[in-house]
Amino acid sequence: MQPSADPSKPAIVLLSGGLDSATVLAIARDRGYSCHALAFDYGQRHRHELEACKRVASTLGAASHRVFSLDATAFAGSALTDNIAVPKDRNETEMTEIPATYVPARNLVFLSVALAYAESLSATDIFIGVNAIDYSGYPDCRPAFIESFTHTANLATKLGVDGNAIRIHTPLMEMTKAQIITIGTELGVDYALTHSCYDPSAEGLACGRCDSCVLRRNGFEQAGIPDPTRYA
Amino acid sequence: MQPSADPSKPAIVLLSGGLDSATVLAIARDRGYSCHALAFDYGQRHRHELEACKRVASTLGAASHRVFSLDATAFAGSALTDNIAVPKDRNETEMTEIPATYVPARNLVFLSVALAYAESLSATDIFIGVNAIDYSGYPDCRPAFIESFTHTANLATKLGVDGNAIRIHTPLMEMTKAQIITIGTELGVDYALTHSCYDPSAEGLACGRCDSCVLRRNGFEQAGIPDPTRYA
Repeated sequence: MQPSADPSKPAIVLLSGGLDSATVLAIARDRGYSCHALAFDYGQRHRHELEACKRVASTLGAASHRVFSLDATAFAGSALTDNIAVPKDRNETEMTEIPATYVPARNLVFLSVALAYAESLSATDIFIGVNAIDYSGYPDCRPAFIESFTHTANLATKLGVDGNAIRIHTPLMEMTKAQIITIGTELGVDYALTHSCYDPSAEGLACGRCDSCVLRRNGFEQAGIPDPTRYA
Repeated sequence: MQPSADPSKPAIVLLSGGLDSATVLAIARDRGYSCHALAFDYGQRHRHELEACKRVASTLGAASHRVFSLDATAFAGSALTDNIAVPKDRNETEMTEIPATYVPARNLVFLSVALAYAESLSATDIFIGVNAIDYSGYPDCRPAFIESFTHTANLATKLGVDGNAIRIHTPLMEMTKAQIITIGTELGVDYALTHSCYDPSAEGLACGRCDSCVLRRNGFEQAGIPDPTRYA
């Protein structure tokens, strides 16, 4: 049972359609925030994640849900945006190198636009589902990046300059995938509505072999919770 | 006479169509960079500045010129994007307060997207025309913001993580408007092609009374250079 959202506590929650950001939305709602979900259309090769965002936002009680478009040219050169092979069958110990699915400066751009949107709504709180444990090697998921961004955000904005008010919440930072799934399940997240796979079939079935699928599948197994993902 | 651009020195140059960013492009070209000009369509109330960007990029020898679109919803609440009055007839000493023309987190968003674009072109250098002297009170024009952004940018990206390679160039930071105009004139900038006014007529004539017009007009006067601006 979700608590009612407090309109005087607005927050922006970045949604990707995946397991992590859905859990973050449930956590932010559980803390009483009125959650404005924000997803990005940045030329992803497949659209399943944007559909998942819509399902997640509506079932988890977001106050609003928007999809902002970003110019795909800015993010060229990634396996998630271009016709470059998605790495498969890497085990978790191999996931410390930056993989081909890295998208240039993606979290920085997402957080920056979220900050502009937050300020236009007079909100000072932004939630993002980055994770330093099962992070697949991306530089922009580390605590040092989030700390530095927070400092920059407070220097960049009117709300920040007026008293260091901007806060970036990363509730999943120190959790394993199994812990994330356990907490999300307790908060009522239906993971069947989420989409994690980097290389799904045309029908949206998960490949089961990309980094994202491997981490997700192992997480359900370790949590002892049935995996509702539909694999190809 | 401009030096030829070195393709092995690619840089992104943020263009606004105004006097400052045109001068920055001329400076970057003078330093031998192959300049990829980048402008943003973020729902500005008038389009004259995007037309000015095109004129400036082509006459100053940019290697490429792109306009990226950003969702206007993210930048709501500013006199530059919404139907809010542009402040007029402020003198320069009054311009230390953040004015109604402040656009939420604009330079942070512009620099972040420029960084993504830079990385997709394997470029590590970004030029922006921010200025701490005639800065009209915007928080995201100060040296502390640029320093913090540079640190964040190097943590956020593959190129940055590989050796702190990202550099944000702010050649105008410590210049007065008169100095900017003097240097730009020496480098061949035709300021008649630029557009600075926040509140132009439908035909694109400058109002002569907004902060931007006041700073520009005073700059030409102090530089002792004829002001080619067409005022309403």
